[in-house]
Amino acid sequence: MPNAPTYTTPPAAAIDALLGAVSFDSAGLVPVIAQQHDTGEVLMMAWANGEALRETLTTGRVCYWSRSRKALWRKGESSGQVQRLVDARIDCDGDTLLLLVDQTGVACHTGRHNCFFQALRGGRVAALARPLVDPEQLYPG
Amino acid sequence: MPNAPTYTTPPAAAIDALLGAVSFDSAGLVPVIAQQHDTGEVLMMAWANGEALRETLTTGRVCYWSRSRKALWRKGESSGQVQRLVDARIDCDGDTLLLLVDQTGVACHTGRHNCFFQALRGGRVAALARPLVDPEQLYPG
Repeated sequence: MPNAPTYTTPPAAAIDALLGAVSFDSAGLVPVIAQQHDTGEVLMMAWANGEALRETLTTGRVCYWSRSRKALWRKGESSGQVQRLVDARIDCDGDTLLLLVDQTGVACHTGRHNCFFQALRGGRVAALARPLVDPEQLYPG
Repeated sequence: MPNAPTYTTPPAAAIDALLGAVSFDSAGLVPVIAQQHDTGEVLMMAWANGEALRETLTTGRVCYWSRSRKALWRKGESSGQVQRLVDARIDCDGDTLLLLVDQTGVACHTGRHNCFFQALRGGRVAALARPLVDPEQLYPG
């Protein structure tokens, strides 16, 4: 697979412009879809606040907001499974983001490449993919 | 482009099983990503409640919940731009759905094929795609 395009940090005024085009919800969050930039695979959905989004755009490394931990969630900080930003897209209403990323390793905490692996098969909810990595290896200790 | 696979309505017990695997939020909603099944294009993100999801799985035609209108939103009911369901995927935490669909026409109310057409270009937020259909044709009167 070719390397992801090199990310160039936009000027601060451009980052402000993008943030200004986003409608955050009443909790100050916006849903963020991460899609592998070259294959089109939808990897995961998470949330960002303004700070997480600003960090993502500034560093080129995707940062979410963890609603459970109530803290910035630098994707891959524990697991090494980072997401490099390729492009950030805003939807028509400004209330959802689509990040085109280059995923290192696996996106899902279960060790699967993406989080959307459950579907109805044979009348029951089944896992369509197996873990590629042991979750205990991703989050040791 | 080949026709979408024919959708077969699952047995009622299977639909119950899928609904039971979904974690709806405190408002009874779950975010739903719609992806074109064959090209991988992410078309839009919207919300569903249990009733919308049950209707989608039963009819094979995607139905959301409109948070602004507080009503079921049968995608394409006004515009004709329907989404046929190909497969419904649930993420690892059960709190996001990815619907693989076959989009008739355009997904976005602005007349663009997908909703994620805004991004930073040249230091400002720019539209990356033009409308393929005049929105006034989509929503006459």
